[in-house]
Amino acid sequence: MIRKKLGQRIKEKRLQLGLSQEKFALSINMDRTYFASVEKGKRNISILNIEKIAKGLNISLSELFQEL
Amino acid sequence: MIRKKLGQRIKEKRLQLGLSQEKFALSINMDRTYFASVEKGKRNISILNIEKIAKGLNISLSELFQEL
Repeated sequence: MIRKKLGQRIKEKRLQLGLSQEKFALSINMDRTYFASVEKGKRNISILNIEKIAKGLNISLSELFQEL
Repeated sequence: MIRKKLGQRIKEKRLQLGLSQEKFALSINMDRTYFASVEKGKRNISILNIEKIAKGLNISLSELFQEL
């Protein structure tokens, strides 16, 4: 469940920045298909990749996990 | 760096509960040596294990990452 909720939160924040999955994944040097599967909640993503995404979204980890 | 900071935060919260590594790891059904290495910042821990630890510490993920 947490994987789905985190994926949805990442997507929500990415869309707020007006970025496509491709542009965002490129901006943080992450494989686009991997990033797409993270947003779908299909990945047991690691802390280093979570941090990379939060930095790319320009938000803190705490904000990323707010109310999840 | 985030692995170290998260490990220290987990240790801090565990000690506030007055639990040993062994007792805490047992309480969340996590291997004690793995948990010890998480606290030392040696693991690129996954979201499912982070959630397991936060639940065991009885705090939200957002609180776990507060100011990290």
